[in-house]
Amino acid sequence: MDIQQLRSKIDDLDEQLVRLLSERAQAAVAIGELKAKQGTPIYEPQREQDVFNHVRGANAGPLTDLQVQHVYERIMDVMRELQRPHSGAARP
Amino acid sequence: MDIQQLRSKIDDLDEQLVRLLSERAQAAVAIGELKAKQGTPIYEPQREQDVFNHVRGANAGPLTDLQVQHVYERIMDVMRELQRPHSGAARP
Repeated sequence: MDIQQLRSKIDDLDEQLVRLLSERAQAAVAIGELKAKQGTPIYEPQREQDVFNHVRGANAGPLTDLQVQHVYERIMDVMRELQRPHSGAARP
Repeated sequence: MDIQQLRSKIDDLDEQLVRLLSERAQAAVAIGELKAKQGTPIYEPQREQDVFNHVRGANAGPLTDLQVQHVYERIMDVMRELQRPHSGAARP
């Protein structure tokens, strides 16, 4: 494949990645709502650690496990933002 | 769904996400090799901007377009690392 074909493949993969991120975000929002009802904290360090362990374990390369974790650190940041009620609302 | 079921769904989505990240990384490595042969630079700001525009356009929420871009900024960081020859090699 030439660069143009590889980029077209990447564009297709990116559409699938964004769809999965949306599904993941929907599930995170649902968890945030359940936690709000139960009065449990949004941030659970042990669960985040479990997620990092899980994705490192699922990684078959060529990214290193640490690179996969770096991507997931950002994913967890935005998921946590999304779970906080009114996090996106304008404030005075 | 309760929290446990939602987490199990997220774990499944994460396995799919890691698989797609691996496929994307393989394509990025192939592009890096072609660029090395051609002597063209790894970092192409316009292509990165095109990727950000593409994923923002593909986003249907609940993440904001900016949150999707934040995730992709990290993805592009690790892909660029991977494209640099010997980036992971031990150095004296």
